[in-house]
Amino acid sequence: MPLPVTPRLTVDAIIELADRPGRPIVLIERRNPPPGWALPGGFVDVGERVEDAAIREAAEETGLDVRLITLLGIYSDPARDARFHTAGVVYVAEATGTPVAADDARHLDVFDPDGPLPLLAFDHAQILADYRQWRAHGTGAPLRPAH
Amino acid sequence: MPLPVTPRLTVDAIIELADRPGRPIVLIERRNPPPGWALPGGFVDVGERVEDAAIREAAEETGLDVRLITLLGIYSDPARDARFHTAGVVYVAEATGTPVAADDARHLDVFDPDGPLPLLAFDHAQILADYRQWRAHGTGAPLRPAH
Repeated sequence: MPLPVTPRLTVDAIIELADRPGRPIVLIERRNPPPGWALPGGFVDVGERVEDAAIREAAEETGLDVRLITLLGIYSDPARDARFHTAGVVYVAEATGTPVAADDARHLDVFDPDGPLPLLAFDHAQILADYRQWRAHGTGAPLRPAH
Repeated sequence: MPLPVTPRLTVDAIIELADRPGRPIVLIERRNPPPGWALPGGFVDVGERVEDAAIREAAEETGLDVRLITLLGIYSDPARDARFHTAGVVYVAEATGTPVAADDARHLDVFDPDGPLPLLAFDHAQILADYRQWRAHGTGAPLRPAH
């Protein structure tokens, strides 16, 4: 069969720093368009499991060796990325140590997810709102059919 | 940026028949390669949310109007489909009424997920094993990094 055309697959990790009080999370400031802050993540490679892509992207952008905790949800609103349609798998993960920005991350910082956050690219503000619900109540991201 | 090449995105639904005792599930016998039985599902279209693709594919292959209950997991072992690398999002769903095979479904039947099942294509036997754990304990599919 001809290769089907589907949304491009991305992955992001919400990295909790397990050795700091309150388990703050890591956000990066993007080097490439679109600008803004975002969760560490990127495109899944052909031949790579989504879980491994999350671990790889976290290492590339923050230097952290993360352990995945849970699947938060999959985000696929066609408008979530203005460049083309992506579907984004989001994991909650944890790591210890000091993150260092690299690769697509121009800078990074550590945030209390319940405190003020920088301006976020894509739908990452919605993802973090879902994450706060997971953190408070253990619930996964709501399903959001458009129809 | 050039369009990145990622695993192709598929979606499947485990459809529980809510108006039958024991909530049995629907499996289809595939019309197209690879042969065998499978969960109703298919490729996600560009411009379509994954949730909507699950509802659309269930309607096309079984005639049922399904309601999604939960995200079970995402399956992305590069070997799960011998044709090319796919990543499969799997939802648990429910419906009422009588399913009727159509489209890629040559036949369909209704099964007790704890009873004998036909030979399943792809990694759908593993997906149904995870589903039985969800049904018994409420747990989502385990994360399965290869590394």
